[in-house]
Amino acid sequence: MAAATLSTANCLTFLTDFGLQDTYVGQMKGVAAGINPRLQLVDLTHEIPPQQVLRAAYVWNDALDAFPPETIHVAVVDPGVGSDRQLIAAEIGPYRLVCPDNGLLSVILQRATVRRVVTLDNPKWWRANPADTFHGRDILTPVASAWSLGHDLSEFGALRTSALVTLAAAQPQRGKTSLTGQIVQIDRFGNLITNIDVRGLTADTESLRFEIGAFRVEGLSRCYADVNLGEPVALTGSSGRLEIAIRNGNAAEEIQADCGRRIVVRWEGTVV
Amino acid sequence: MAAATLSTANCLTFLTDFGLQDTYVGQMKGVAAGINPRLQLVDLTHEIPPQQVLRAAYVWNDALDAFPPETIHVAVVDPGVGSDRQLIAAEIGPYRLVCPDNGLLSVILQRATVRRVVTLDNPKWWRANPADTFHGRDILTPVASAWSLGHDLSEFGALRTSALVTLAAAQPQRGKTSLTGQIVQIDRFGNLITNIDVRGLTADTESLRFEIGAFRVEGLSRCYADVNLGEPVALTGSSGRLEIAIRNGNAAEEIQADCGRRIVVRWEGTVV
Amino acid sequence: MAAATLSTANCLTFLTDFGLQDTYVGQMKGVAAGINPRLQLVDLTHEIPPQQVLRAAYVWNDALDAFPPETIHVAVVDPGVGSDRQLIAAEIGPYRLVCPDNGLLSVILQRATVRRVVTLDNPKWWRANPADTFHGRDILTPVASAWSLGHDLSEFGALRTSALVTLAAAQPQRGKTSLTGQIVQIDRFGNLITNIDVRGLTADTESLRFEIGAFRVEGLSRCYADVNLGEPVALTGSSGRLEIAIRNGNAAEEIQADCGRRIVVRWEGTVV
Repeated sequence: MAAATLSTANCLTFLTDFGLQDTYVGQMKGVAAGINPRLQLVDLTHEIPPQQVLRAAYVWNDALDAFPPETIHVAVVDPGVGSDRQLIAAEIGPYRLVCPDNGLLSVILQRATVRRVVTLDNPKWWRANPADTFHGRDILTPVASAWSLGHDLSEFGALRTSALVTLAAAQPQRGKTSLTGQIVQIDRFGNLITNIDVRGLTADTESLRFEIGAFRVEGLSRCYADVNLGEPVALTGSSGRLEIAIRNGNAAEEIQADCGRRIVVRWEGTVV
Repeated sequence: MAAATLSTANCLTFLTDFGLQDTYVGQMKGVAAGINPRLQLVDLTHEIPPQQVLRAAYVWNDALDAFPPETIHVAVVDPGVGSDRQLIAAEIGPYRLVCPDNGLLSVILQRATVRRVVTLDNPKWWRANPADTFHGRDILTPVASAWSLGHDLSEFGALRTSALVTLAAAQPQRGKTSLTGQIVQIDRFGNLITNIDVRGLTADTESLRFEIGAFRVEGLSRCYADVNLGEPVALTGSSGRLEIAIRNGNAAEEIQADCGRRIVVRWEGTVV
Repeated sequence: MAAATLSTANCLTFLTDFGLQDTYVGQMKGVAAGINPRLQLVDLTHEIPPQQVLRAAYVWNDALDAFPPETIHVAVVDPGVGSDRQLIAAEIGPYRLVCPDNGLLSVILQRATVRRVVTLDNPKWWRANPADTFHGRDILTPVASAWSLGHDLSEFGALRTSALVTLAAAQPQRGKTSLTGQIVQIDRFGNLITNIDVRGLTADTESLRFEIGAFRVEGLSRCYADVNLGEPVALTGSSGRLEIAIRNGNAAEEIQADCGRRIVVRWEGTVV
């Protein structure tokens, strides 16, 4: 019954590494509009650095909960396009996802359970004469658009039972009085977004110390405005994960930190 | 009666300093789609330089008249997110606007009259557990989306009667035979957009002289093609304000002019 | 009958050189939403380099086939805005197109036949007081939006019978055992997209040799993954035209090739 309620979707999202200077994104939307003209087409982002699948996996994971549950999400960061890597459509936790099976689901799979996955091997749903260099337009988008019309996942291909490809999405390492994670994303403001879930750090947040190389900041704040202009601040980002920022400044530039850089959280005594 | 006709909206716009490399904009659209799936979601721009509220105030003002009057416009340039700055929804002149009360309305208020403003203090309309770093997604967008469904402004919070925050949006200074304004925006083409309303300069436009530092251009033209390739031109921009351009060139680079730079208009005799 | 079925459109696309840092694109969408609130508004791209009409002509041509046939496409790369260049709406092949008559149709006209063209000289359909610097917002978009409601092309202006403006969109030159074309676009990945239709090169594709200056690549591949990481590859791009890439690399940077650069295809014996 719940599944039936969810069978159609009004909203289709796209996340790619295509950028916006070409018409690749527009072409995918044209294909979607031709199949389901009532879809609301939403861009998550198209500025994933070219072919950085793991970066995309973090970004994709963080965006999903803002959308209605029936939404269908398409991700195309696909260095293996045209090779024997598989294309899949998946119900994972509350999400409906369409992408190459190349690790894009790595972060989502850390917190959500696979319910059903199919390999997109039924060409009935593909665009005619799919280009070997653009499966996003010719296979992933047509399938996602048909899915939004209420077709069942099983129509798009064979049930996939083997494990999905996952990349080594680093899990924070917990010590006795420390937790070591890493920066996984830097946003437009230069804010450093980490893979550390702040909900594991809630006791005595004032005693926490955050270290990135020689850089230090003390105490977990609630918002940027808790510190003075130009001062560093550690807080819970909008994704629920630890974020290091400089108020009205650019932390990535000032701390000279990049994605993958190690961050250590230290405390005295017990943290719940 | 007129108000009743306007109570729902088909169109919701966003103006932010979020850029497009992150999914912040997409997340706001997801929240909107969950509340009113029939909304047309339009980006004004997301490339406001980080936290430049006054720049955003000019840009926002210029974009509004292109939209149907019932449209709801959300602006999020919000360095004070999470602090005690207020969030508001406002009916100002013919516009319906949702934003932090931090000066974003400064330019609109120069030409339109406040009709009704409420402080967004009724959490019934917010997203559950709003993030202290992303009120755009968790408070402003849900309120704007509910407003588009026809709810009355008064449902979202207490009537605001005190003055709104305004920044010193420079007004041109008029001399006997001159007017001194400033460059308030530079567009992608390098065109210099000023705060000078051309409708105050319509008599004998051929005798007008425009000065930016040592740079000079004579006479007000009608369009770029009125001058030869590579030549400077002064004309009425699409916003109705004075614009200085180089035909098929980049005035900002060639004149080395930036936002805030002074521009003087001189004439002989009387200008209406 | 077929024409009647196509008379309304759900989808309106935009291609411009406006960039996204200003609100010009948003303003055009606002005008469209005011005329036909049910339109799906799709961006092709807004990152055409300023005023490069021929570049836009290639990009526009490649994007059209992804859309439903009734879609209306608006292109605004318009260095002559406000001059005596004409604005037109055209039915060309299966496409419905609205643009300045300045060469934007040059590439489409190489493969599709003009059915009907009108000059947009009926101000009834324009926005009131159109700005001389922004016909995209004040003339092209209102006409396109009215067209989407089912109005006939003839309502927008006088039938145009003289030839449309075309730019010298280079056609590949065929020799006895070679074909000489050029690079017409470079995408975000640095892939070099040429004006050579691969369907003319299908026999014995392994013997083909591709030359850009001193750079060489042998054989036509099917997809990027046909070669090792960092190796060059020649293949059929998603537009159907020859593309040179470096797998997981940036061919434009590594080969130091730019738009307009010559590419020669050589073979032994006969190519169909």
